[in-house]
Amino acid sequence: MIRGQGTDGRKASRNTLSRPERGSRHQIFPGVEILTIAGKDLMLSVVHLEPESIVLDHAHPHEQMGILLDGRLEFTVGSVTRLIGPGDVWRIPGGVVHRVRALEKSVALDVFHPIREDYL
Amino acid sequence: MIRGQGTDGRKASRNTLSRPERGSRHQIFPGVEILTIAGKDLMLSVVHLEPESIVLDHAHPHEQMGILLDGRLEFTVGSVTRLIGPGDVWRIPGGVVHRVRALEKSVALDVFHPIREDYL
Repeated sequence: MIRGQGTDGRKASRNTLSRPERGSRHQIFPGVEILTIAGKDLMLSVVHLEPESIVLDHAHPHEQMGILLDGRLEFTVGSVTRLIGPGDVWRIPGGVVHRVRALEKSVALDVFHPIREDYL
Repeated sequence: MIRGQGTDGRKASRNTLSRPERGSRHQIFPGVEILTIAGKDLMLSVVHLEPESIVLDHAHPHEQMGILLDGRLEFTVGSVTRLIGPGDVWRIPGGVVHRVRALEKSVALDVFHPIREDYL
């Protein structure tokens, strides 16, 4: 956010248009840090992964989609493993086990529905 | 997707890990092209905006969040207008009028819940 021209105050501004620095930061695995921004039924998560960091096998009832912005990942969803690069996307239905290994320093964007209360 | 190592076939692979080129392409305004990828209750939309292109005032019942990946936008949500840059995010509750003007060539990622049937 560079400058505001709103007429209904800074609080409203922050609720609609903001820098992700105002989100919530969590280290979810060694070398894997997320910055989350919650809406009502959507949550964005900007994910920074160090080389060789690993998101271990896990599953959650939330639907998850995402896109790799930079880097290279070995991504496993269910029984399918792919090497993916920038612009590649993933769709993970609720309850499906998935894991990730970063082959290099990477940045991804994840989206969850509903929001993950553990990432607020 | 660079190469597959899955054991349950290419169809399953495409459903979970794929290049967005396999999404659905729409020109929603002059100079504004989107590429959408639908999950069950989530939809990703990669948005390319030409300089000075405009997304006119509109609203929809779907919740929308997004992040600017590249470029610079003048983004209005309700009565709040901001100049935003890469990494800035937006949260648009269902029903709230919003509009965008691209100040330069820009790339954004939008997310909708539920999926927008008109963008399938």
